[in-house]
Amino acid sequence: MKTQATSLDVARLAGVSQSAVSRCFTAGASVSDAMRNKVQEAARKLGYQPNAHARSLITGRSRIIGLVLSALENLYYPAVLERLAKRLQQDGYHLLIFIGDNANSDDLVEEILQYNVDGIVLGATTLSSALAQRCADASIPVVLFNRIMASGSAGAVSSVRSDNVGGGRDIARFLVAGGHQRIAYIAGREDSSTNLERERGFRDGLAELGQRIYARAIGNYDVDQARQAALDLFANAADRPDAVFVAGDLMAIVVLDTLRHELGLAVPQDVSVVGFDNVPQAAWASYELTTFEQPVQPMVEATVELLQSYLRQAQTPPSRNLVVPGQLIIRQSARQSAPRSCLL
Amino acid sequence: MKTQATSLDVARLAGVSQSAVSRCFTAGASVSDAMRNKVQEAARKLGYQPNAHARSLITGRSRIIGLVLSALENLYYPAVLERLAKRLQQDGYHLLIFIGDNANSDDLVEEILQYNVDGIVLGATTLSSALAQRCADASIPVVLFNRIMASGSAGAVSSVRSDNVGGGRDIARFLVAGGHQRIAYIAGREDSSTNLERERGFRDGLAELGQRIYARAIGNYDVDQARQAALDLFANAADRPDAVFVAGDLMAIVVLDTLRHELGLAVPQDVSVVGFDNVPQAAWASYELTTFEQPVQPMVEATVELLQSYLRQAQTPPSRNLVVPGQLIIRQSARQSAPRSCLL
Repeated sequence: MKTQATSLDVARLAGVSQSAVSRCFTAGASVSDAMRNKVQEAARKLGYQPNAHARSLITGRSRIIGLVLSALENLYYPAVLERLAKRLQQDGYHLLIFIGDNANSDDLVEEILQYNVDGIVLGATTLSSALAQRCADASIPVVLFNRIMASGSAGAVSSVRSDNVGGGRDIARFLVAGGHQRIAYIAGREDSSTNLERERGFRDGLAELGQRIYARAIGNYDVDQARQAALDLFANAADRPDAVFVAGDLMAIVVLDTLRHELGLAVPQDVSVVGFDNVPQAAWASYELTTFEQPVQPMVEATVELLQSYLRQAQTPPSRNLVVPGQLIIRQSARQSAPRSCLL
Repeated sequence: MKTQATSLDVARLAGVSQSAVSRCFTAGASVSDAMRNKVQEAARKLGYQPNAHARSLITGRSRIIGLVLSALENLYYPAVLERLAKRLQQDGYHLLIFIGDNANSDDLVEEILQYNVDGIVLGATTLSSALAQRCADASIPVVLFNRIMASGSAGAVSSVRSDNVGGGRDIARFLVAGGHQRIAYIAGREDSSTNLERERGFRDGLAELGQRIYARAIGNYDVDQARQAALDLFANAADRPDAVFVAGDLMAIVVLDTLRHELGLAVPQDVSVVGFDNVPQAAWASYELTTFEQPVQPMVEATVELLQSYLRQAQTPPSRNLVVPGQLIIRQSARQSAPRSCLL
């Protein structure tokens, strides 16, 4: 075992009080530069480490936020992880990573709770009502990132998501305004709230303009299945769609490549493609993908604000579901407008 | 404050010993299913949480590994993070994330040490010799991922990296075998060990075949600078390179897009492009990038093995620098062979 110097040893060597040593190692505590230098020098000489774990038992704060993610192949999450980690780091918190699958993450949350985390962000999965209630009972705030609980579930779980419904509707309007008349949809995971909301907004937007989804296939947010969905929808040249809304950018990029390089179609001349996310790769010159932006930084800020508001209170306040507005990013993968006569 | 049930409360309610309760909440401990069910039911009724922090003070193990990353825009690191997190999770460890810049990360490591981590993986930066020594003194293993300490530095810091030198040499041989005679290089960060090694191998490989780097620019592993490097190298049609090795895949993708979409060059007919990493996007149909693979899973396994071997021992063993072999992945972005006469 390591033998470790204590804060008392440091205080003695530096000639200061033990509480001064403590303040020097507490983020945001008031302490003079001279004091800090003296204490840090003594701490270095003795190899003293203020133990964040021991401190958490005293203050009740671990300064750890658990984050559950699934596959980072989804091009949207690396930026979320990076910005969330950076933002929390500014406040002295750090993310502890748990990799889950797309199913319910009750087992993982049990494991997370063992780390005495100050909060949990679920970026991959949802939670059972029972476990949500357990977290609430333990005063541990839980924020779902870009998903919501199945309707009717209890438990005080908050959420932050982009405007999936509004985005779906905007894309429907954009494609109809572009003169498209055979507009297809490639769905993500059919039980995910992101897919349900995007499809609902898309369907409603088309209906308001007198159209309906012309053809539909399921990509499941998966690269291979998205390719197969494109092949299925566009196999028959006679009745193929003239536009397709794909429920996520990674799938949209795969669809675009499949249309161009496997089926020999020109995008956007033969078919328009629109995605959802605005991942960095959507802007690459080979794709120039028109897409609806899920704004990472505002969503991260909203997540941190929810966590912080809970951490400032003894009791967990009522859950809140925040929707962050996004916008359509128009690039080159979809025709932008029809001749004026078609708009009538 | 929360009032929490203790393991003694759980033991009483379940009618078992306190050590049985402890074993039920220790990964890998031997315990019967019946015992586990009994204890878990009692724990649930009481809202009992075995506190990993409290346990770390007893066992000296936090089961936390600190990971320092910089920008995840680098397309290689999301996969590394995901697989490393998954692999450690199997053994009951989790990654605590710290976002650093590309400079020395001494300050961050001071912060990491406060969490009483069992180990540190540096994926973004390097470390001063002094701080490396402090980690060694505290028996905390440090593994540099895909970089090495500047030569001559002391301190027991291990590293895992891909075969950057061998990869650079293989790419030189491949391009010369393809009949290229004006082979350019676009460098990453010039002070990074990855760039230094790749360029050294590339230069040596060309020299062995009687060539030298025809033209050189610096992309700094940055999207905007990589684009500018391509514009600079290929501005003059009269003496432009017929091939370019770009020191990382993200830069190579940007270079490829710039050549095709801004300069109107055909790849590989007018110019061959080769990258380094084999990120998932290199396989996308719009790029089909020939590249040297840094094999993520073997590098992750090597990292975990180094950490585990240190965790099993009371004293930190001598540092080791592991090189994981990779391979050239041949796709369509570079001409593959010259007419036979050119090979003589």
